Amino acid sequence: MKNKAIVLLSGGLDSATALYIAKAKGYNCHCLIFDYGQRHRKEIGSAKRIACSAKCPYQIIKISLPWKGSSLLDKSIRVKGQGLKVKGIPSTYVPGRNIIFLSFALSYAEAIGAKSIFIGAHAQDYSGYPDCRPDFFAAFKNVISRGTKAGVEGRPIKIEAPLINMNKSGIIKAGNKLRVPFALTWSCYRGGREPCEKCDSCYYRAKGFKEAGVKDALIK
Amino acid sequence: MKNKAIVLLSGGLDSATALYIAKAKGYNCHCLIFDYGQRHRKEIGSAKRIACSAKCPYQIIKISLPWKGSSLLDKSIRVKGQGLKVKGIPSTYVPGRNIIFLSFALSYAEAIGAKSIFIGAHAQDYSGYPDCRPDFFAAFKNVISRGTKAGVEGRPIKIEAPLINMNKSGIIKAGNKLRVPFALTWSCYRGGREPCEKCDSCYYRAKGFKEAGVKDALIK
Repeated sequence: MKNKAIVLLSGGLDSATALYIAKAKGYNCHCLIFDYGQRHRKEIGSAKRIACSAKCPYQIIKISLPWKGSSLLDKSIRVKGQGLKVKGIPSTYVPGRNIIFLSFALSYAEAIGAKSIFIGAHAQDYSGYPDCRPDFFAAFKNVISRGTKAGVEGRPIKIEAPLINMNKSGIIKAGNKLRVPFALTWSCYRGGREPCEKCDSCYYRAKGFKEAGVKDALIK
Repeated sequence: MKNKAIVLLSGGLDSATALYIAKAKGYNCHCLIFDYGQRHRKEIGSAKRIACSAKCPYQIIKISLPWKGSSLLDKSIRVKGQGLKVKGIPSTYVPGRNIIFLSFALSYAEAIGAKSIFIGAHAQDYSGYPDCRPDFFAAFKNVISRGTKAGVEGRPIKIEAPLINMNKSGIIKAGNKLRVPFALTWSCYRGGREPCEKCDSCYYRAKGFKEAGVKDALIK
């Protein structure tokens, strides 16, 4: 029987690639999708379609963060298009987001006996977001070893971040080889009808496709 | 201006005492209550009443853990009354529960600029539950330092577990001095009209009040 894995699926191309990598490694993948009041709720539909195209079951977890604290949750804060000019932590940082996502994934993994959790964090993310950095994942690994039944009984659940050392174009190249359905993914933070092509997320996506020499089917 | 703290409030007597300790330390307390499908949902009402009696604002966060994995969530698993006979991790362990609770508290703390998170974990809990042990809190502290904006900017949010070295009777004695409204608290895992006086939680409560020499107003 295949080992089970939980895959955090956002609807973007990074986590979609992480899912296809987990499948290629032979895992029986269970996707976890969050509806957390993000302004780009459109990504939830994308995440569902990606899970279906990969023939994987999914759970959608609805959570509210009524205290907001991020331009991704609070429509009164503008999402700036800063591209490579970003210094420090961007306004789209959501306090505790990946810690919350990983803790639900951990609960799910422990309840169904999954061995691993896959997350699509990568090098370009961790320049800005502290909860995407390798030393954060190392610290979280310790929480799993000490704070879960599986951990203290000597079979800790692993966190796998297969994209951690890649940049966007590397991810697109890797995903392209695995036939990730990029046309189903959604990246734009603004979550309009079409990608805005101005926010950071659109900026990095366009740059990545260009550098990878791959056509982005989402852009006309 | 007073420093802010987030207090995880379950409705039980431990977290109520933690709240009154945080207040006595001079914090401006914001309570966080979870509705996570626990069979003893009655504790949510208790938590609200405790927050009101302490004149503190509260947020109720509704989360679902559809994968269950605990007798506290799954009514098809019996909550056994084992008292001191418990060996290993009890069936009432909820995978990842305190990790999830702490990560929401962390998000809340970071969003409102709170300095500390109070949790009512204590010595008798940590014999059974790995997510109540000092080494789990130490590991989580590391996650805060590395995985949050506040942490990487050098002002990590503290986790305070003021009851960690107390047993139930010690907590009751401490709470009694601070006039914690024990009559508003709820402990029974079964969540019926009256405490069942048979489950582990009722067992430890009764033993604690007896040893502390305090009358439990909840028991007729």
